[in-house]
Amino acid sequence: MIEQVDVKVNGQGLHDITKPVTDLVAGKDVAEGLCTLFIQHTSASLVIQENYEPSARYDLEQWLNKLVPEDPSLYTHTTEGPDDMPAHIKSALTSTSIGIPVIGGKMALGTWHLALGTWQGIFLWEHRHHPGTRKVLVHLS
Amino acid sequence: MIEQVDVKVNGQGLHDITKPVTDLVAGKDVAEGLCTLFIQHTSASLVIQENYEPSARYDLEQWLNKLVPEDPSLYTHTTEGPDDMPAHIKSALTSTSIGIPVIGGKMALGTWHLALGTWQGIFLWEHRHHPGTRKVLVHLS
Amino acid sequence: MIEQVDVKVNGQGLHDITKPVTDLVAGKDVAEGLCTLFIQHTSASLVIQENYEPSARYDLEQWLNKLVPEDPSLYTHTTEGPDDMPAHIKSALTSTSIGIPVIGGKMALGTWHLALGTWQGIFLWEHRHHPGTRKVLVHLS
Repeated sequence: MIEQVDVKVNGQGLHDITKPVTDLVAGKDVAEGLCTLFIQHTSASLVIQENYEPSARYDLEQWLNKLVPEDPSLYTHTTEGPDDMPAHIKSALTSTSIGIPVIGGKMALGTWHLALGTWQGIFLWEHRHHPGTRKVLVHLS
Repeated sequence: MIEQVDVKVNGQGLHDITKPVTDLVAGKDVAEGLCTLFIQHTSASLVIQENYEPSARYDLEQWLNKLVPEDPSLYTHTTEGPDDMPAHIKSALTSTSIGIPVIGGKMALGTWHLALGTWQGIFLWEHRHHPGTRKVLVHLS
Repeated sequence: MIEQVDVKVNGQGLHDITKPVTDLVAGKDVAEGLCTLFIQHTSASLVIQENYEPSARYDLEQWLNKLVPEDPSLYTHTTEGPDDMPAHIKSALTSTSIGIPVIGGKMALGTWHLALGTWQGIFLWEHRHHPGTRKVLVHLS
């Protein structure tokens, strides 16, 4: 089973896609298996991060922005805007695909609070500034 | 097949989990397939590295510690200790999941010395300082 | 199905392996599935990047070379040459395995120009300077 999840982004940052992905998987008849996510882009990426404290995502983003500055004097690939080359670098440093086991019909993300489902969230990390729609493929077997 | 491997860690650093994982896979009746590892945490990660020279792991750890310093003045997410936010960043820069082919009933890790099995080792990279137990899921198909 | 793709490299840099991998997958009778790539090395890695503008790969390589300098005074693991330890670090920061869905018998890489097939290319990133042959395993299910 492969389905496409379209993610609307309003600009740079970590967009939580845990719910659309876990809902999609929960709706299929797969008791035990593997869910592989693949993002069809090279200026946005995937990352699993703590989904409880927004400050953790804020710091993560700030830190990476400092490591990979949007300063055209650092790059030769500048025709697509000052955020394009940094976006490619950030994508290379994070993930294009992630494989997550499915147990008991649910994605086996780590949790420390079962009722709230908090801990490991799945995020699409948009590295560019303009709004748009990003495509994530979800393979389930 | 999905099984959980509990990894006891005594603090920050690269913990070799090659043997428990390859033993688990070798004990199953899978001649050819794919083994996917998934760590259920956001402050520890997975990495495949040279398992022959301990100096390579030492340098790797030192280098990342310098890149992502445990300096609370750099972060806003500081309530869980000075090593927590750097641990999240380090996890985002390394891997939460890794897929490794299985050939002839064994994980197809690269080797240059077949008898010693040295070259590619599988490591759980603990990014926090306190001891504890980390959970790695092993999916085999 | 698991096959090995041998990649001849002439030195450091991003080597495009999109064609050998997509040709291999297209030649198999798999309408829908998952293709997992795994590189059997710890001083070379895999990355999906834009395959249209060579300047993007040039900048990516330059940026990582600056982040992880080949300066022996920074490392203790120096017996295998000044490019060895940086190669291990660069491998840890990029990917050892990538999972890519297969749809309609083809790898579902992102494209913005279907006729040219440009956008997401699969690259073997050689981090060492000497020429050689690197092994990539291709698992298809």
